[in-house]
Parts: sequence; C-alpha cells; structure tokens
Amino acid sequence: MNNLFEALRNPGSVAVVGASPDRRKIGNAVLENLVRYGYSGRIYPVNPSCNEIFGLRCFPSLDGIDQAVDVAVIALPAEKSVEVLDQCVRNSSKFVIMVAGGFSELGEEGRKLEAQVRARINGTGTRVIGPNTVGVLFPHSALNTALTPNDRIYYPGKGSVAFISQSGALGLLVMDSITEFGMGVSGFVNIGNRVDVTEVEVLSMFMHDPNTRSIVLYLESISDGAAFFSKAREASLTKPVVLLKTGRSEESSRAASFHTGAMATDDRVLDGVLRQAGVIRAYDEVELLDYGRALAYQPPPSGDRIAVITTAGGVGVVTTDLLTTSHDGIRLRMASFSSEEKDELKKYALPIASVNNPIDLTADGSSEAYAAILNVLVESDNVDGIIAYALPQTPKIGVDIVDPLKVASRKKTLVAGVIGNRLSKSLLVELEKAGIPAYPSIGRATNAMKALYCYGVYRRRLLDGN
Amino acid sequence: MNNLFEALRNPGSVAVVGASPDRRKIGNAVLENLVRYGYSGRIYPVNPSCNEIFGLRCFPSLDGIDQAVDVAVIALPAEKSVEVLDQCVRNSSKFVIMVAGGFSELGEEGRKLEAQVRARINGTGTRVIGPNTVGVLFPHSALNTALTPNDRIYYPGKGSVAFISQSGALGLLVMDSITEFGMGVSGFVNIGNRVDVTEVEVLSMFMHDPNTRSIVLYLESISDGAAFFSKAREASLTKPVVLLKTGRSEESSRAASFHTGAMATDDRVLDGVLRQAGVIRAYDEVELLDYGRALAYQPPPSGDRIAVITTAGGVGVVTTDLLTTSHDGIRLRMASFSSEEKDELKKYALPIASVNNPIDLTADGSSEAYAAILNVLVESDNVDGIIAYALPQTPKIGVDIVDPLKVASRKKTLVAGVIGNRLSKSLLVELEKAGIPAYPSIGRATNAMKALYCYGVYRRRLLDGN
Repeated sequence: MNNLFEALRNPGSVAVVGASPDRRKIGNAVLENLVRYGYSGRIYPVNPSCNEIFGLRCFPSLDGIDQAVDVAVIALPAEKSVEVLDQCVRNSSKFVIMVAGGFSELGEEGRKLEAQVRARINGTGTRVIGPNTVGVLFPHSALNTALTPNDRIYYPGKGSVAFISQSGALGLLVMDSITEFGMGVSGFVNIGNRVDVTEVEVLSMFMHDPNTRSIVLYLESISDGAAFFSKAREASLTKPVVLLKTGRSEESSRAASFHTGAMATDDRVLDGVLRQAGVIRAYDEVELLDYGRALAYQPPPSGDRIAVITTAGGVGVVTTDLLTTSHDGIRLRMASFSSEEKDELKKYALPIASVNNPIDLTADGSSEAYAAILNVLVESDNVDGIIAYALPQTPKIGVDIVDPLKVASRKKTLVAGVIGNRLSKSLLVELEKAGIPAYPSIGRATNAMKALYCYGVYRRRLLDGN
Repeated sequence: MNNLFEALRNPGSVAVVGASPDRRKIGNAVLENLVRYGYSGRIYPVNPSCNEIFGLRCFPSLDGIDQAVDVAVIALPAEKSVEVLDQCVRNSSKFVIMVAGGFSELGEEGRKLEAQVRARINGTGTRVIGPNTVGVLFPHSALNTALTPNDRIYYPGKGSVAFISQSGALGLLVMDSITEFGMGVSGFVNIGNRVDVTEVEVLSMFMHDPNTRSIVLYLESISDGAAFFSKAREASLTKPVVLLKTGRSEESSRAASFHTGAMATDDRVLDGVLRQAGVIRAYDEVELLDYGRALAYQPPPSGDRIAVITTAGGVGVVTTDLLTTSHDGIRLRMASFSSEEKDELKKYALPIASVNNPIDLTADGSSEAYAAILNVLVESDNVDGIIAYALPQTPKIGVDIVDPLKVASRKKTLVAGVIGNRLSKSLLVELEKAGIPAYPSIGRATNAMKALYCYGVYRRRLLDGN
C-alpha cells in the first residue's frame, strides 16, 4: 500500500481534468496552483475546448495521454466527475482527486452517485480521494492541487507536520494561518467524503513518510473505528498523532452530519479509546497545529518538572498558574532547584531578579545572562522541560536569544513563548526557522508543553504494552 | 475621590523627576513617551544636572516649579524615590508615580522603605501609584508615562477597554499585542506594589470614566477583598469587569509572592465571590483582553440561543462543538429556526448550502447573500446572539462584509471570527475599526460569546438583587 501512496505523495505526472483558462473556474485555480507552486513533473491539462493553457499543451480527454498518470484531479461538477472516472480507469491513473461537492453531504441522490464512484473503480488499480475535497499539498515534492487561488490563501512550504482534514475549507484556512510565522507542513490531504481512500490509509502513508514527524487530523467522524484505532496506535509509537474530533455534543454531531454526512460516536467512549491509542486531543484548529508543531519539533519531557524562564514576572506567574492547574486533566509541576543550582543561577541573575522558579531576569536581563541560565537548566537533573519566554520589553534581549534557545532545545524539551506585536512577530519567525516550537501567548505555550508531556506518558504506556 | 482621580486621568501638568538626556536611563524613556505620545499639558523635566531635555526647560527640583503638578513621575532608584516624596508633598503634587522596583517584592528592607513612603504622604493631599510600576497610559488625554521606549513596545490608541494590571511588564506586553489589529484602551494603570492607591480606587475611577465601557484586571492578589468585591459589584451593573487572578494553585501563589509580594486566597472561595459580584474570569492574558473587548463593544445576548454563519462547513461544526460543550461551566444552545425562517434563508442560500444552524454558505457564498442572511438572523425571535465568520477562502466575500456585520451588530449581539493570514489580518483591522469584536480563531470567538452570555446572566442576577 505504501508504495502505491508514493504516487500520491511524490507523483511523476498530474492531469487536471476540467483545466480552464477561465479564472472563474476551479480548473483554472487548480492548474495555476500546480504550476505556481513549482511542480516539476509532467502536467496534463485536460479540456476538449482548449489547445493550450498556461503554455501547457491541453488534451481533449485522458484517453489522449500516452502514459498512466499518477494523479488525476477532476475539477468538474459532480455527475460529470463520475463519468470521467471511466477515462481514469482506462488510463490506469493511480489516484483520482474528485473535487466536486454535491454527493452524500446532500442526501440520497448524492449517496447514489457515491455508490457509482465505488462501482466504477471497483476491482481496478485506481484509487479515489474525495469527492468534496479541496485537494492535496505536498511541499517536499512541490505538489499543490488545491482549488483556492494563491491570492486568497497562502500555502505553507516544507515542514514536518502532516495534516489530514475531513473539511476542505477549514484545512485551507488553517494552512493560510500557519504561514504567518513561516510554519511548513510535510503534507496536507483533504479526504472529503472519503468514498474510497480514508483517513486510515492517509495516516499510514504519513507514518511511513520520512518528511513527517507528527500527524494532525481534523475529523467529524471516524470511518472505521477499529482500523483507525489500530493504525493510530501503531503510528503513535514513532510519530505523535493529534486529533481534533468534533461531535462532542448531540448538536455538533447534527451539524457535522449536514456538513460531511458524518455519524455520531459517543465522545466519552472515544476519549478512552484515543488515550489507549496514544492520541493527543485538540479542541480547536489552533490547538491542533500548536500541538502538532510541538510534537514534531521536540521530544516529550522525561518527567513533569518544568522550569520557566522569563523577563516579566507576571508572565511567569500566569505560566505557573496554568502549568500547575488542570487543562484536559493534565497538571505539571514546577521544578525545584538544588541549593547548588540556585547558587549557580545567582551568578547570572541580577540582585533584583528571582532565582526561584519561575526565574525572572526582569527587564534588565541580558541575552548573556539568559543563555547562561538556560545552560544551568539544561544541565539540571531537577528539570524535565523548559518554557522560555523571549519578550520584547527587555532592551538587552533580542533575536540573539534564538541561538542559545536552539542549543538548549536540542538538549532538553523546550517550548518558547513570545508576547507582543512587531518585535515578537520577528522573534516568532526566527524561532520557527530554528525549529523551536514558539507560541504567541502564555496559554498556548503552556498547553503545548502539556501536550508534549501527555505524549510522553502515552508513549511509555504503549511501549510497556499497557 | 473621583474628582481627584480626574487629575490622574487627564492631568494639566506632568513632572518627570529623573528626566535624562541619557538614552540608557528610564527617565529618558518616560519623558520621550510623554512627548511623543502627544501630551499637550505642561511638562516639567526635573534633573539638577541639565538645563534642557528634548527642548524642554529642565528644573533642578520640584521646589523650583511654581505650580502644583497633577502628576509627578519619579524615575529614580528606590531610596532616592522615597526622598523625593518630600518635594512632591511640598509641591502639593496630586499623584506621584513611583517607578522604581526594589521594595516589598525584595523582602524586609523593601517593606521598611514602603512604610517610609506611607509615612511621608500620610495626611497630605499627595497620592502614590506604585512603587514598582511601569506607569500609566490614558490615550484620551494623550498621556503616556510608560518606561519602555516606543521602539520596543507599541502603545495602543483611544479605545473603550480599561486595563488595570498589578504586573508592569505583562501590562506592556499585552498593550503591545493588542496594537496588532488596532485595538485601543481607555486607560492602563500599573498599580505595582500599591503602597497607597489600590485596584479598588482605580476600578472606581474607570467606573466613572465616560470613555470606559469595560474594565479588565490582572491581579496576583487582592488588596482588600471586601472593598474589591463591593466595588466590582457596583461597577458590574454598568460596566462589565473581567479578572485574571493568579494563585489558583499553591505553586503559583508562591510564584506571585516572589513577584509582587502577593498573599494567597483560596481560589474556590474567590470564584464564588466573583460570581456574586458579576465578575467574569479569564485564565490568561489573551482571554482577558478578548473578553474585555467583547464586553466593551457588544451588549450581552438576551438568551443562550446562538446562530452561526459560515462559509466553511468545518468551521461551523467546530463552533457548534465548542458552543454546546462546557468552557468554565458555560454551555450555549444552537438556535433553531422556524420553517418560515428556513424558507426565508433558502432564498439567499445556494442549493448546496445548508440553512440549518450553522448556516454554511460554502465557498460560493457572496457578500449579498451573507448580508441578507444576517438580516434574517437579526430579525429572528429564535436567535439571541450571532457568531459570524468572515473567511478569506471565499472569493465573493471581502471587506465589503464589514458594513453588514456592523449594521447587524447594532441590532443583535454579534461576535466575528476570522481565520487565516493576509486577508484575515486586514479583515480583523476593519472589523476592529467598525467596533465589532473579532477573533482570529474559533475557540476565541466562541469563548467571547460565552463571556458575553455569562455577563448577561450575572447582570440580571445583580439587578434582581440575588
């Protein structure tokens, strides 16, 4: 199976059926994204009424193409899309991305159309993604089949977080969001109505993908509980899995059923099952990518004793509050320093600064003192993880703090917090470049550390076979 | 008392004791902020070794100034600051802002110094803010006495949220943060060690301030529980009060005691008391300003039935999930439309769109259809509040959505949600200008609506005398 999915993740050729020079058509945006994002394989626009689009020779149908394409994107209305499947099968296309909506999410008629999709590919080597999908993005192979133009949505570059989404628009919006500080992804797949390929196979693909270090999923329903549980458990051993699963109340299950035709699951049952599979839960789209990023960039802490370094006392106090009280059942402890460590810390702290935990260097703190203190924390046997704040109100601390933070983060689990506007934004960009999970609020930094801790606990249990 | 505080909020004259041409000195930054922020009253730099700073005549001491200044900022080290108080008293200065740290937060010696402060102003008309304060900001009178230069921290402009903070640095960082989308404040006061003026008097000042519509507080401890409770309850009737109070665990109480010398309170007791006083709780700095903004810009919904309008199905589903499950004990309901309303909604929705709640216009939705649907929601007796998403993946919806949202928000409680990067950021700026509380994530938008609802419930109880 994984060899097969290599054709999706890194295809040698892509056809766009319904490619169009008309900017109002989806087939125009798909082809433009493919070209602009830098895809270097063969591209076959398919449209019987055009000779050329974007300087590429256009084919009247897939039947005119003399190779089996790895990926065929069908950017046509629902019924037409289904008809074109026969061409895809004749072409021996490996993957078909069916963009059109208007299937099971609209009811009985749509369900019949989906049955037709299954019938047409049944017993063939052709696999279908969608329908009702905005497409896929694989930055490491420069593949972008998304249907929204780049002037509305920015697409992320190369990264190590894989993102599987049942919802297309939410997926696009989240990808646009994460470009703010330069975060990338290893891939994005909008599984849509998953008439054929489900989240389980995509999860398996990313599990075997060398570019992927963590996998995040947005699901409104789970297609096959047992298969998902088993695959997630397997994946969790090597790559942390984060899930945003809606339908936690009766009302939201109903909302999901109108959206993707999803069926409800009892959320408490699901919660227990996910815990056993080692899956971290997120509750909105920001948490989903926050946790995915922490887990991709950092190993879990070896215990629950956290040191906090700050140059703003209040930031340390709020962090302590959030770390030591429960969020989704997780509570951590503040590390206690030995008297030798306190003596060591005092060397670098100003007389006014606090060498208790949180360590507050105050606004007079310098990058040098900060780096020296980080080093003490990294070497300490009393510290399992570090939350380090880089705050712009401190004149003697600037972007030069990023290198010491990077060094520390290679030795001990570290999450960075940044608060503010202009200087903070540039710090967030630099921290992201350095591969340090950094967050623009105390709550988000703290919860990211909790997610890392949680994964560590789950993973140890999985390894112990419990 | 309120006439007195008028001299702080809108002073006719400000002295800066310790003003300096040396850019490394705090007295330099304070004077520069005062001048650059546009303060138009009399400014008196005080420094015996200078004749002129920033083109302003410099005085050797307050004794040389022939008027009683409304505000004297003392930007000198701790012991010197205490000595200068006698000059302030002789000058009949109304408010003294004592910037220096090194008082009770450092222990016994500092507590003695604070006792001296109290002794020196005892029985005089001079009031002290601080020590250990970064200063105050009152945009409506163009007063900025903050100690951090503008190249590190952006200061907000005029707004309707008042911000009282026990921590200075956290206050500065939060102010810098909120400038991102152009949010303003009616005032900011860092009470610091509150040796004289406490949060209760500042709360009272903002309660009577016509520019203030909501009041948010960051406190590590409460100076006088009964007085705070009583004043907060009084304020809550006309101006919503939001509190971020740390010390929820034993460990964080300890962290706070090192920071501002704060003493612990039992958090469960506090929770009940705050509820009775009508105070909304926040748990980090982002929530604090998110709720303050919602409560300043919008009245509470008259009930718990919320309509959600979106152009991304998944966004509607996650919103439903978060609205209908508990956050800090608050759960809301999805509004149910009558069949007449559904018929009306269908006129504007595309065939593929859902007219159930959430209403999903899909990526084909237009600003016209969106505006028409908003109008149906505003007129509906089945809807108490609206969460409206303005999402950039939708080609036919742009900044033109802001006007209809503004109109709707004047008729029914409305909170906007925006997800994404470039286009979303510009939408957030325009929504802020229009006075609509808008948030860059589903969780934040949903929690803001919950805060509004919560305030409505508390306020009705207060009015009923329960």
